[in-house]
Amino acid sequence: MILPSKFQGETEKSDKPSPPLDVSVAFPQATPATVFPPSVSDYYRFDDLLSPEEKTLRMKVREFMEKEVAPIMAEYWEKAEFPFQILQKLADLGIAGFNTEGYGSPGLSITTSAIANAEIARVDASCSTFLLVHSVGMLTIGEIYETTFLSALTEPEYGSDASAVNTTARKVEGGWIIDGQKRWIGNSTFADVLVIFARNTTTNQINGYIVKKNSPGLKATKIANKIGVRIVQNGDILLKNVFVPDEDRLPGLNSFLDTNKVLAVSRVMVAWQPIGISMGVYDMCLRYLKERKQFGAPLAAFQLNQQKLSLMLGNIQAMTLVGWRLCKLYDKGKMTPGHASLGKSWITLRARETVALGRELLGGNGILADFHVAKAFCDMEPIYTYEGTYDINSLVTGREITGFASFKAPGMSKQSRL
Amino acid sequence: MILPSKFQGETEKSDKPSPPLDVSVAFPQATPATVFPPSVSDYYRFDDLLSPEEKTLRMKVREFMEKEVAPIMAEYWEKAEFPFQILQKLADLGIAGFNTEGYGSPGLSITTSAIANAEIARVDASCSTFLLVHSVGMLTIGEIYETTFLSALTEPEYGSDASAVNTTARKVEGGWIIDGQKRWIGNSTFADVLVIFARNTTTNQINGYIVKKNSPGLKATKIANKIGVRIVQNGDILLKNVFVPDEDRLPGLNSFLDTNKVLAVSRVMVAWQPIGISMGVYDMCLRYLKERKQFGAPLAAFQLNQQKLSLMLGNIQAMTLVGWRLCKLYDKGKMTPGHASLGKSWITLRARETVALGRELLGGNGILADFHVAKAFCDMEPIYTYEGTYDINSLVTGREITGFASFKAPGMSKQSRL
Amino acid sequence: MILPSKFQGETEKSDKPSPPLDVSVAFPQATPATVFPPSVSDYYRFDDLLSPEEKTLRMKVREFMEKEVAPIMAEYWEKAEFPFQILQKLADLGIAGFNTEGYGSPGLSITTSAIANAEIARVDASCSTFLLVHSVGMLTIGEIYETTFLSALTEPEYGSDASAVNTTARKVEGGWIIDGQKRWIGNSTFADVLVIFARNTTTNQINGYIVKKNSPGLKATKIANKIGVRIVQNGDILLKNVFVPDEDRLPGLNSFLDTNKVLAVSRVMVAWQPIGISMGVYDMCLRYLKERKQFGAPLAAFQLNQQKLSLMLGNIQAMTLVGWRLCKLYDKGKMTPGHASLGKSWITLRARETVALGRELLGGNGILADFHVAKAFCDMEPIYTYEGTYDINSLVTGREITGFASFKAPGMSKQSRL
Amino acid sequence: MILPSKFQGETEKSDKPSPPLDVSVAFPQATPATVFPPSVSDYYRFDDLLSPEEKTLRMKVREFMEKEVAPIMAEYWEKAEFPFQILQKLADLGIAGFNTEGYGSPGLSITTSAIANAEIARVDASCSTFLLVHSVGMLTIGEIYETTFLSALTEPEYGSDASAVNTTARKVEGGWIIDGQKRWIGNSTFADVLVIFARNTTTNQINGYIVKKNSPGLKATKIANKIGVRIVQNGDILLKNVFVPDEDRLPGLNSFLDTNKVLAVSRVMVAWQPIGISMGVYDMCLRYLKERKQFGAPLAAFQLNQQKLSLMLGNIQAMTLVGWRLCKLYDKGKMTPGHASLGKSWITLRARETVALGRELLGGNGILADFHVAKAFCDMEPIYTYEGTYDINSLVTGREITGFASFKAPGMSKQSRL
Repeated sequence: MILPSKFQGETEKSDKPSPPLDVSVAFPQATPATVFPPSVSDYYRFDDLLSPEEKTLRMKVREFMEKEVAPIMAEYWEKAEFPFQILQKLADLGIAGFNTEGYGSPGLSITTSAIANAEIARVDASCSTFLLVHSVGMLTIGEIYETTFLSALTEPEYGSDASAVNTTARKVEGGWIIDGQKRWIGNSTFADVLVIFARNTTTNQINGYIVKKNSPGLKATKIANKIGVRIVQNGDILLKNVFVPDEDRLPGLNSFLDTNKVLAVSRVMVAWQPIGISMGVYDMCLRYLKERKQFGAPLAAFQLNQQKLSLMLGNIQAMTLVGWRLCKLYDKGKMTPGHASLGKSWITLRARETVALGRELLGGNGILADFHVAKAFCDMEPIYTYEGTYDINSLVTGREITGFASFKAPGMSKQSRL
Repeated sequence: MILPSKFQGETEKSDKPSPPLDVSVAFPQATPATVFPPSVSDYYRFDDLLSPEEKTLRMKVREFMEKEVAPIMAEYWEKAEFPFQILQKLADLGIAGFNTEGYGSPGLSITTSAIANAEIARVDASCSTFLLVHSVGMLTIGEIYETTFLSALTEPEYGSDASAVNTTARKVEGGWIIDGQKRWIGNSTFADVLVIFARNTTTNQINGYIVKKNSPGLKATKIANKIGVRIVQNGDILLKNVFVPDEDRLPGLNSFLDTNKVLAVSRVMVAWQPIGISMGVYDMCLRYLKERKQFGAPLAAFQLNQQKLSLMLGNIQAMTLVGWRLCKLYDKGKMTPGHASLGKSWITLRARETVALGRELLGGNGILADFHVAKAFCDMEPIYTYEGTYDINSLVTGREITGFASFKAPGMSKQSRL
Repeated sequence: MILPSKFQGETEKSDKPSPPLDVSVAFPQATPATVFPPSVSDYYRFDDLLSPEEKTLRMKVREFMEKEVAPIMAEYWEKAEFPFQILQKLADLGIAGFNTEGYGSPGLSITTSAIANAEIARVDASCSTFLLVHSVGMLTIGEIYETTFLSALTEPEYGSDASAVNTTARKVEGGWIIDGQKRWIGNSTFADVLVIFARNTTTNQINGYIVKKNSPGLKATKIANKIGVRIVQNGDILLKNVFVPDEDRLPGLNSFLDTNKVLAVSRVMVAWQPIGISMGVYDMCLRYLKERKQFGAPLAAFQLNQQKLSLMLGNIQAMTLVGWRLCKLYDKGKMTPGHASLGKSWITLRARETVALGRELLGGNGILADFHVAKAFCDMEPIYTYEGTYDINSLVTGREITGFASFKAPGMSKQSRL
Repeated sequence: MILPSKFQGETEKSDKPSPPLDVSVAFPQATPATVFPPSVSDYYRFDDLLSPEEKTLRMKVREFMEKEVAPIMAEYWEKAEFPFQILQKLADLGIAGFNTEGYGSPGLSITTSAIANAEIARVDASCSTFLLVHSVGMLTIGEIYETTFLSALTEPEYGSDASAVNTTARKVEGGWIIDGQKRWIGNSTFADVLVIFARNTTTNQINGYIVKKNSPGLKATKIANKIGVRIVQNGDILLKNVFVPDEDRLPGLNSFLDTNKVLAVSRVMVAWQPIGISMGVYDMCLRYLKERKQFGAPLAAFQLNQQKLSLMLGNIQAMTLVGWRLCKLYDKGKMTPGHASLGKSWITLRARETVALGRELLGGNGILADFHVAKAFCDMEPIYTYEGTYDINSLVTGREITGFASFKAPGMSKQSRL
């Protein structure tokens, strides 16, 4: 093999590369996602099922995301950094924390929260995850601190098996000593307050403990090299001999049962992210296919492409209605864990299929974040997996409908006679 | 190869075989479908969206189907014969003809019709197809004749391309002479009246003509060797020089446009058949998996089986909601052809997936009509294809959302430079 | 609902229906499968990998099947009867019993057997299953009896869990008393000799016992209402106090291990059935799509159809090569149970996909056995399930590659904390 | 929403974040891909089909990739930079340029090249793409220049429709003036020589022109924000009034036909990338699932996981054999464009499925490049699309098997009567 001349006798890169061409110059035939495409996925008029307030909020969030967030997202996603300049405006939308005041409270209804969430995810799933992480923290401890916070449950050793918490809280004079390690914790690199789930060594129950940012023994570092929701800063948290005063043990989180309640609400909200993601992908695809020509015609005029669009659109109608029904069950107090898990697993399955079709539809530009779909395709993966993987959620539902728990592996014996 | 002794020197079957064992003796571990399983697929409480009247009718139809039809269906399906003994009782349910009095009329609402239709298909898709065929005929000409009838559109040469009707109606003194051939026409072997779509040779438009049972020149024969909806008697119809008096030309069917209206309603109803089929399959699977044991545990306790059940159940929730939304759009006069086609194509796609999972779940008994799922699996295929194939319906929706028709094949030239 | 006039006041069918139109008259645009389409699926010239003898036998079997079997198969499949008139000619092909003389013997090589088997299944899967059933029996006991026989392993209570045999063989003076029940046993209604696997109550091991046709206490009845391989006569076998003399206990089948050996060979042969089925479906589809026109062009000229054909063809190349490699591993004595199970599961998965695409391609005629594909689609289902379901074979391979057996359900406890 | 304290009154990020934890500390339970897992995917002993030389080269390339490349790849992929320090060693392997000496030449056989290519892609698809880009350039013009080069065909306006080249070459005194724009051109930001395909305005044929690195009027910039093969530097190339002397017009590339020949070879090589990618993913998954425990057992012991592994492994056996057969057809001079396209499309389809299963199997760590699978999952997407998208390759095969070209959209008319 002949090496490029500049590498003969050296292996260092020397000359500075030119900055990339603006994508609208490099590819003039189709509009990039900085000008976000119009929302065209509500084919079955789902909006008619919403209240005027819900519709108004939806439009407000949509406008914000299209105007303020879409133009900068490819860049921040590539850098894997959070655009803190949008944070105040995001806060001003008034949708974080969702329905923290409890079931049936005067806060935002779960449907409203869900729709706002989907509108955010339509343009950028990372923003949506950022808010969910924040909101779950608020849901856990309420707005008792004037700060941002998050809850840390997952540990390196245990993902799907959420009950197997290894982090310990040991009773000492006036408080507790926390030791352990957490992983994947969203927003943890800059949050003021962390809710750490730990096993109370006295009672062997799992409790929540509030750990403040600069506590001695606490170390939070960013997880690098993510392929999806790259804008969200997930962290590894090391806790070595961290002291938490008695008053910072959360009274409402005395058992894993409470954690499960939080998880169920959270699962509903997460189920709406793929709905929003799919909407954005469809919107982008339809505009792109009408603009882009091959073989003398817009790509939108080809059979193979139309069939993909139809399937995507069908999936979106179905996901939206399933998500909506789930919210209504929640509102009536009739939602079970199996319901939430089915919503999350089924919707993510269809969304994964939908974004893969969209990725394919955009051809080469389908691998560039500039045209949105590639980013959405990657963002879909963590969502497919977090808040219970597809498999785990299937089995949660499976347990509810069959009466049998099948999470564990069979006996481990190798002697089966098959 | 050694032949069985009885075939050495002869190739005729001589001794009479014993009748089959009753399946409940041959396979005592699980209940066959003659005792139909309880309805357990409404996981997301879709019923809460129905009116009391709709719920009442649903229960009435369900009870009829489980009690009167389930016990005999495997047998008639195998024989490919219609069980005429249930016909009077089916008529007494008062659901045939559906909403024939027009849009928004005091007849059964389309939602009610759809749900009744699904309940029928849950136990037997052939019965449901039988009624639809009958009802489309009634929808076409109204209840002006006190007879059964059907409409004949499809021809041997043209399936998907419904506009290309070759059958002709030539004006003569006092009436019309019909010549041509129709295929797949449901109920045609015993209907009293047939509505024949033919091309008026004067105007070149497609009109409907009422042809009575014993008209000279009319021949209707049963299509044999079907793998699905075997109970329905589809026919080949030959029309040679058949005279129809002037008053039997349908005034409302002056153009293909009218035909399309009928097709759109019909597509909504057909979209509910796979919903019902999937429900019945799920119901059967859940009972079977709880009863049947392998490796020391009910099949319902295995991970692989639970995941299949979850996906089936998720599909059913989604299909039901999509079908429901389609009815509501229709009710408000907002349903487009693209909406109907998307409903039909998307729902059949998911139902096909659902019944294939069910077929797999039942193992060996999944190939016997006695355990219902095999029959449903086969019945799903014609439904996937009739009333517009999956592909054609995708393209109808595709045209509506893109503005480009892509039904035709490209130029036929072989000179492409790829 | 208005009843057909003939059913007003009566519910009996009275007048005799006309016989069906010949399908070539009813549908003149495409040739039915009685004239079987040419074999065109060997796109990657797999034939070049075969020896001249293998090619010659392939052509001989192909010609026999196309000429003698294709013309009558739709009819016998519909009737669910075996066409005994072809039996002598089938025997004359010299391919039954396959490589019964043992591993690496001068009998037909496994590759040759496999290819012959695929050629048979290409035209009719039932014939192929018939021969396999026969051959497994011969493989089990060798050609020591001048009769036809079969081996009966499956029982009503146990399908996938083949080791759990409930039928017992109790030692008595001069022989054994067999009691139990078998199910699904192919050819059992007319075979001269049955090999019954039973648990020896003395040693608790599973042995084979030869039971002759008219033994007192033996009852074999046909299983009715099958949707696939309808021509094969599967039976329920009841054994009540059946005496077998000492010399009819098979010496080589002293343990389940031997049974497993037979199963492994059998799995290879079964893996070639879906290859043949897929070939026949592809051949039929290609001819049909070139003959049949819609929207002014042959169906073969449409994008959506071409993509389906390409995928089918790709699947067939891959299945054939996987099947071929499996035979070569077997020939070298290197084939493990995991290899055989992977071949069977993977090939059936792809074949199931292939025939479903084919079924769709044929539209309405895709539900008629006359055009072959509908029949093949149904025949695929039992094959997907027998000789180890897809799931069970996946887990056999899974055990081999991971070292962990996962056949059993987890502990059955409902207390999981998820 | 409460903002993090540091953002109250400011929206700038101030304090420097800690560097990420080493992943082996953050997640001690499973080994990251810096220590690449052993190669365990050759379940059906494909290696037995290789010559000793092929096996030796395979081991040599494998060792190089595991030792030299695996430890640094996550980092460079994240940075989207090429690790030039490996370039000399990569060159020393002697596999670039592949079989440039023509069909059947003493250069590396296509099988050898293909296997080497797969081994590279197993660890890093970007490296494999880098070499392919380089080699296609060499294949085009031969080793007449002692430099690196590449060929530039794709343009912004035309992707799939490769024949529609807009870049022009206008004859002037002593040479040609090139004007136009290219896109996606691999290695273009540092290559010494570019082969530019342009339309000769005199003959209207497409020719190749050699453009040197610093030619006036040439501008090559890197395409940013890619989600896959991020290490490869794809470029946008602007050509404004670029002069090429007569001797730098490639004599052998007088028409698009020649380009098609190059594309066919290239398609075979690209088809082996997904094979290698899938192998690496499987290797990583199997090790991970054995190391990682949940619910008290290694993930490898769960049914759902074993089934995914089995399917992945089955796909890999099949892809490998299909790729191998394709090489053999090429070797014998019997490979058609349809063969190459089927290989590429079918293999990428199965590989896309395989890596998606792998991504799912790794759960949360499946979204980190550190554990390899996430990176492979993303790398799969451009490969699915380049060298002809899945759809385009399907239609190339479709044209060959049906005789009809279906690349173009139907007539564009909106008047279809459906």
